[in-house]
Amino acid sequence: MPLTKYFETIAQQTETWLDQLVPQEDAYPPSIHQAMRYSLFAGGKRMRPMLAVAAFEAVSGQKAVGTERGAVMPFAAALEIIHTYTLIHDDLPALDDDELRRGKPTCHVRFGEDMAILAGDALLTLAFRILTDLQLFKGIPAQTVCDLARETAEAIGSLGTIGGQVVDLEYENTTDPDPAILEYIHTHKTGKLIAMAVRGGGMLGGAGEDQLSSLTEYGRRVGLAFQIIDDILDVEGDEKLLGKRTGSDKRMDKMTYPSVSGMKASKEKAVDLIDKAIGDLEMFAERAGPLSDLARYVAARTL
Amino acid sequence: MPLTKYFETIAQQTETWLDQLVPQEDAYPPSIHQAMRYSLFAGGKRMRPMLAVAAFEAVSGQKAVGTERGAVMPFAAALEIIHTYTLIHDDLPALDDDELRRGKPTCHVRFGEDMAILAGDALLTLAFRILTDLQLFKGIPAQTVCDLARETAEAIGSLGTIGGQVVDLEYENTTDPDPAILEYIHTHKTGKLIAMAVRGGGMLGGAGEDQLSSLTEYGRRVGLAFQIIDDILDVEGDEKLLGKRTGSDKRMDKMTYPSVSGMKASKEKAVDLIDKAIGDLEMFAERAGPLSDLARYVAARTL
Repeated sequence: MPLTKYFETIAQQTETWLDQLVPQEDAYPPSIHQAMRYSLFAGGKRMRPMLAVAAFEAVSGQKAVGTERGAVMPFAAALEIIHTYTLIHDDLPALDDDELRRGKPTCHVRFGEDMAILAGDALLTLAFRILTDLQLFKGIPAQTVCDLARETAEAIGSLGTIGGQVVDLEYENTTDPDPAILEYIHTHKTGKLIAMAVRGGGMLGGAGEDQLSSLTEYGRRVGLAFQIIDDILDVEGDEKLLGKRTGSDKRMDKMTYPSVSGMKASKEKAVDLIDKAIGDLEMFAERAGPLSDLARYVAARTL
Repeated sequence: MPLTKYFETIAQQTETWLDQLVPQEDAYPPSIHQAMRYSLFAGGKRMRPMLAVAAFEAVSGQKAVGTERGAVMPFAAALEIIHTYTLIHDDLPALDDDELRRGKPTCHVRFGEDMAILAGDALLTLAFRILTDLQLFKGIPAQTVCDLARETAEAIGSLGTIGGQVVDLEYENTTDPDPAILEYIHTHKTGKLIAMAVRGGGMLGGAGEDQLSSLTEYGRRVGLAFQIIDDILDVEGDEKLLGKRTGSDKRMDKMTYPSVSGMKASKEKAVDLIDKAIGDLEMFAERAGPLSDLARYVAARTL
């Protein structure tokens, strides 16, 4: 199931914003900016920006791309910058020790471990520089900009994304799989940022509390489904299509949905989450079309 | 030259804020919060908070500690959190590979390299959660809060602190010492955050452009003097007093002021910077007493 022109446009627009927001490769010192841009432009799908823009448009009824109401785009770029920082640090030898990402050598393989640590740090820092830049968020009240940045920081901190990564590391090689721990890992490690993409798009679109709750629930479900499907792909996926080696969860003795609940139950759980996520969008009626498409796209990667 | 009661109070107050702002050791997952707090409460001098509070008071004429005008304290805490993240990551085996910091094992020695990388990431993220929390910055306009967070991010990013660290790493083992490169390293690696502490304290105190320029210049000079004196102490300092091994610059073949300009010229440069920094404070008259004291304290560590 290919993504439509609508989503291609968002991905292209995100890359244009990223190119403008991240210092060029010759900015001093060049080595760090080369490393940052190498990982940032390594062919990501830009799914988080797509979710943010689709949520913004579902709420506001206005087009985000190529219009005056472009304020969701710096947020979309910041999400992708944050996502890239987490990948660079997760791939490090002291963490998951991955040498290949999207079919290319990982940042530390290409630039050295020291530069990869610093490039991740610099991307995280840059994300917050963008998220607090009132010039970029033209027309959005300063209070909303602060709230968005604060909620993003909460989503990716020690009680969010990083918490998930910590527990994931601690339960490597565990002999006693625990479904509750696994759900914590998945909802935090990937789920928090995906949910924040949707919620943040809604905040910038001017969503009320009811709308925000529904979007957050949709994001939580899509994020969890995404991770379950990642686990499934690590068993059944095609290395060429994925651009990375499969079977790494098994090699690292990681808890996964298939290993804890079995393959059949994992696929059923993913399908159920996607169905419910689409149900969460009811109040947005036809404006939620792109968000429904994205949920189906997540599922269609394998199921 | 001991610091007065005034500065002791700021340090204590900063630790109280840090204790409240950083999740407790039993917050899930506990391992990451233990690592974060271990490094944060390892006995730092809290010099950046002192600079921020002293600048706030010089501008506003109001006491920051124990009063309604406490809005500079979350900024002071965030500075210390950022400073701690840079120390944890700089100490990593892939970077400076230091095993001792303030007389205690470094974070990765105590908690493992994976946890140290993530603890640094989590501290950096937490700093921006704090810097964008309007509840904490009561009475400060949301626009000022955004500006403060954005300028802080600029100061510590790839064009600031991290840029300095990158160039520092690249010029290890250099056979061709370059004073201009050395000044770049020092003004960026340590100087940018120290200057930001002073400037941010002024912003929260309601400083006008003239006041901010003077404070920024003072901060730049004190920051550079601080780093030159650090270089001097690495040659002449007492390991027990410093809580870390001396001679590490020579072992790592790092460019330093003494190695590039000689010990005598380095001491003269530091003294000159401190004198000029105190001169930058003229417009604040007697309100700048604590900032002058801090400049003299930096110098008195060794000279």
